[in-house]
Amino acid sequence: MHPDRRYTLTASCPDRVGIVARVSGFIAEHKGWILETAFHAEPPEQDDANSPALGRYFMRVEIKADSLPFGLDRLCEAFSVIAREFEMDWTIADSAVKKRMVVLVSKQEHCLYDLLARWKCGELQVDIPCVISNHEDFRGFVEWHGIPFHHVPVTPDNKVAAFAHMKSLFESARGDLMVLARYMQILSPDLCASFPGRIINIHHSFLPSFVGARPYHQAWLRGVKLIGATCHYVTEALDEGPIIEQDVIRIDHSDSVDDMVRYGKDIEKAVLARGVRYHIEDRVLRHGNKTVVFR
Amino acid sequence: MHPDRRYTLTASCPDRVGIVARVSGFIAEHKGWILETAFHAEPPEQDDANSPALGRYFMRVEIKADSLPFGLDRLCEAFSVIAREFEMDWTIADSAVKKRMVVLVSKQEHCLYDLLARWKCGELQVDIPCVISNHEDFRGFVEWHGIPFHHVPVTPDNKVAAFAHMKSLFESARGDLMVLARYMQILSPDLCASFPGRIINIHHSFLPSFVGARPYHQAWLRGVKLIGATCHYVTEALDEGPIIEQDVIRIDHSDSVDDMVRYGKDIEKAVLARGVRYHIEDRVLRHGNKTVVFR
Amino acid sequence: MHPDRRYTLTASCPDRVGIVARVSGFIAEHKGWILETAFHAEPPEQDDANSPALGRYFMRVEIKADSLPFGLDRLCEAFSVIAREFEMDWTIADSAVKKRMVVLVSKQEHCLYDLLARWKCGELQVDIPCVISNHEDFRGFVEWHGIPFHHVPVTPDNKVAAFAHMKSLFESARGDLMVLARYMQILSPDLCASFPGRIINIHHSFLPSFVGARPYHQAWLRGVKLIGATCHYVTEALDEGPIIEQDVIRIDHSDSVDDMVRYGKDIEKAVLARGVRYHIEDRVLRHGNKTVVFR
Amino acid sequence: MHPDRRYTLTASCPDRVGIVARVSGFIAEHKGWILETAFHAEPPEQDDANSPALGRYFMRVEIKADSLPFGLDRLCEAFSVIAREFEMDWTIADSAVKKRMVVLVSKQEHCLYDLLARWKCGELQVDIPCVISNHEDFRGFVEWHGIPFHHVPVTPDNKVAAFAHMKSLFESARGDLMVLARYMQILSPDLCASFPGRIINIHHSFLPSFVGARPYHQAWLRGVKLIGATCHYVTEALDEGPIIEQDVIRIDHSDSVDDMVRYGKDIEKAVLARGVRYHIEDRVLRHGNKTVVFR
Repeated sequence: MHPDRRYTLTASCPDRVGIVARVSGFIAEHKGWILETAFHAEPPEQDDANSPALGRYFMRVEIKADSLPFGLDRLCEAFSVIAREFEMDWTIADSAVKKRMVVLVSKQEHCLYDLLARWKCGELQVDIPCVISNHEDFRGFVEWHGIPFHHVPVTPDNKVAAFAHMKSLFESARGDLMVLARYMQILSPDLCASFPGRIINIHHSFLPSFVGARPYHQAWLRGVKLIGATCHYVTEALDEGPIIEQDVIRIDHSDSVDDMVRYGKDIEKAVLARGVRYHIEDRVLRHGNKTVVFR
Repeated sequence: MHPDRRYTLTASCPDRVGIVARVSGFIAEHKGWILETAFHAEPPEQDDANSPALGRYFMRVEIKADSLPFGLDRLCEAFSVIAREFEMDWTIADSAVKKRMVVLVSKQEHCLYDLLARWKCGELQVDIPCVISNHEDFRGFVEWHGIPFHHVPVTPDNKVAAFAHMKSLFESARGDLMVLARYMQILSPDLCASFPGRIINIHHSFLPSFVGARPYHQAWLRGVKLIGATCHYVTEALDEGPIIEQDVIRIDHSDSVDDMVRYGKDIEKAVLARGVRYHIEDRVLRHGNKTVVFR
Repeated sequence: MHPDRRYTLTASCPDRVGIVARVSGFIAEHKGWILETAFHAEPPEQDDANSPALGRYFMRVEIKADSLPFGLDRLCEAFSVIAREFEMDWTIADSAVKKRMVVLVSKQEHCLYDLLARWKCGELQVDIPCVISNHEDFRGFVEWHGIPFHHVPVTPDNKVAAFAHMKSLFESARGDLMVLARYMQILSPDLCASFPGRIINIHHSFLPSFVGARPYHQAWLRGVKLIGATCHYVTEALDEGPIIEQDVIRIDHSDSVDDMVRYGKDIEKAVLARGVRYHIEDRVLRHGNKTVVFR
Repeated sequence: MHPDRRYTLTASCPDRVGIVARVSGFIAEHKGWILETAFHAEPPEQDDANSPALGRYFMRVEIKADSLPFGLDRLCEAFSVIAREFEMDWTIADSAVKKRMVVLVSKQEHCLYDLLARWKCGELQVDIPCVISNHEDFRGFVEWHGIPFHHVPVTPDNKVAAFAHMKSLFESARGDLMVLARYMQILSPDLCASFPGRIINIHHSFLPSFVGARPYHQAWLRGVKLIGATCHYVTEALDEGPIIEQDVIRIDHSDSVDDMVRYGKDIEKAVLARGVRYHIEDRVLRHGNKTVVFR
């Protein structure tokens, strides 16, 4: 990550000859200084005779903002010509405009403390307009950081209203990103569907192993020798959204379920923090139910 | 692992007060010099009101052979009194008697080369009475090492006879351990059942994810960010036996299925070699469908 | 770690036959229930013809407190007979008596946030009588947690007085353990010598590489492919005390010194937290300038 | 790595606007199909007021060979115009022309077995014109693989002649790359200087820790908690050449020097194999005493 103000272009399009040349030529023509680039060509689906002849091309380019002779608006306008020509899905982010991250939390503090420490020291370049919780426990801690705290209890009876309320809180906060920092309620399908690619969860297992409830207990029963965590985008299918990041740690026969829960926290917060950072820095491009992550 | 000749006692029994005292007292009484010890108390099944009040106790003790005033036979005879008293499942191995490891292989060389290199330099203290394969490819390589090679083709039509033949080869070779070093046939239920806790397989995924065929392709489809391998005892339930060892390596979006296959080999051979060594050194104790591994 | 109250015996002594038997026999005799045991025999110094014929034996035993017919005082009294006989260095800790951990911090928050989160959720079973800093930055955060905060500025001119003040703060707080959570001053030799084995530091390199100042810059200059962190006991020799725990993370050519600093924080806080936990749970036994860590 | 025949362009030059545009424009102009690209801008030396205003730019581009209307000669000729304009150090490799790798080995087999297994299954796309050793041990194994074996004993008295002989063997074999697969002699300065960037060594420590002889013994004395291995280009300064790849594994107090030697082999062979593969696939660009590795 560069300290200078920069525009980050991310795009994907059908693969063909000349994409890099056209995009880098456009930037060079305007004397744009490239800070970082990454490209990836995803081949056509293997084993599928009916799949299209071409694959898909993904790219991410960081341009030093003050090397260009114009601002973001003109850049987008000028680039849209190329984007149309190559049928791109694209976006250009301005590092001077921080994304707005709403954090959801329940009763475990490890991910919350970790995210706030990273935000406080400037590692996570975001604004946090509010924290939402189904419990009151962290009000003091969150408000001490100068961040508004909303308590939205969720019970079997009030789910529809509660999630509708959370949706409106997120919208009022002009949230770009909702992070479930060990939030222990399953979001309503409506909420999931409203913000595709904008809700990030941390699941406390190495998916696709141990979907659903009590994954550490499932891991203990199976006798695995490593436990893991998975950071993924939330979709309506529980624990089946596109995976952004994963990691594992070693355990052994002497570790009880409680030990796993304890050790697991370390891997949960690390994996969540990496996934959130990749998203915030526009390093994650979705491709069907998978992700391209330009670390 | 100690270079001196040693007796390795492994035992498990219902947990109660005084087990360590009784066993170590017995050894001390005969002036036995303890080289290495490990103990583990497995608590009673959690969440189960009907489970017994007591858990199970596991132990492994290495005793310097020449510190004792008698040999293996007298040691076993003397220890059997304690074993009966504590209702132990137990065994005492003599490091001077090498285990006999029969290797099964198909067409991929990485695990075979790796195991033979470890055997040749003395890291794996075993005898290899023979290698069995459903292909002829490695005959020259195996025989160059002075190890008999048996070609047992397996076709849809000859399975019963082929596995019966392999069983008799294993028995004639007085095999202690059968290692499936990327052997690509599913063993017959009869063969699995004949040698419980004596057949070790390497599965090319992080179980329980991606059971069965083409696990790397399954991993690619799901978009996971790590791939793994699992070394386990073979039971009649495919890929569901007790896990001995696992590990993973990082991949990313740029890795094709072929890349995963290639990188996966590194983790397969490392995990298999560790699992085999733990078994050979009597470090693995089975407990239901789980293992206690005293590394 | 067991939730029940327990006594943790740690001891080391010259190696000889019968140590385990004598200690476990003593426990069994009083019907003590052993929760966890670990033993280690360190062989006599290799390559040294003048070294003693015997090595040294280390042990750690957790006993369920209410399984014994007496309390800590009587336990210590009774055990001291064995300890004398075997010339043991020993201690017995009572899990009901929390250790008192004084934290020193400067201007970086990652280790402080991490330690307080672990303390708050009960993972680190300690009392924190105070936090000391050479800066005012974290007063609010620390005091919000109900922990006293002492600002002790350190300048080239006031070092002797400042460290004397810190020593007296530590003593008034009846501190058992002083943790340097990225405290950026070099402690005075007097302070180091006053609390041997009771001051823990996190150094931001994989020691013995990159001793001293700016280790990430040194790492960048050398072009290493992994960076690390080391948790160690502080001695008068800078960065040369006994190592408790280490770990590394992968970097590559694209990472600047600033990136390393940022990524390094993750490994620093993880390694420090593990080292502190091992110490608190009496899992670390010193042996010359090395450690035995019964994880 | 792509199965199709491809040309791999690697280049570095002073950083300026328009490099990517010019190179990719050139490729697109000839309808070249880009399989893989990687770019890296190394900023000007930090902390150095006298350093040049510009940094250095590194790139690696794989082009599908049959997408171009001409062969390698014409491609080089055409590209040389751009290369001159941007003052590039550059090379274009043809995947149809295998590099020639000469392996040097002493008495330990783990790296040799590992490299030959990778070569045999096609993972390492090289020719091995010969293996050179200062011992006879592996003649049979090497010759069984159809590879010539040269025994060149090295004694204190014959060093000059021995290394001169090895140099001539390497030249006669038209070697591109010399791999020291745990070769236990220090190469002569003349030999080192003759093939800069073409001799790869595996050192059995995590450099810069534990330079020189008996690194595992040094590690044991210091009491580190991880041991490592380093793959680097050989220069005249012992163990100080540019690092290509490193990795570590965890050890603990119970591991003797012999255990470390044994576990270390696993990391040595893995790190060497990765380093060699990166070199063979033209993924390593030297930059002073550091490397850019486009994995």
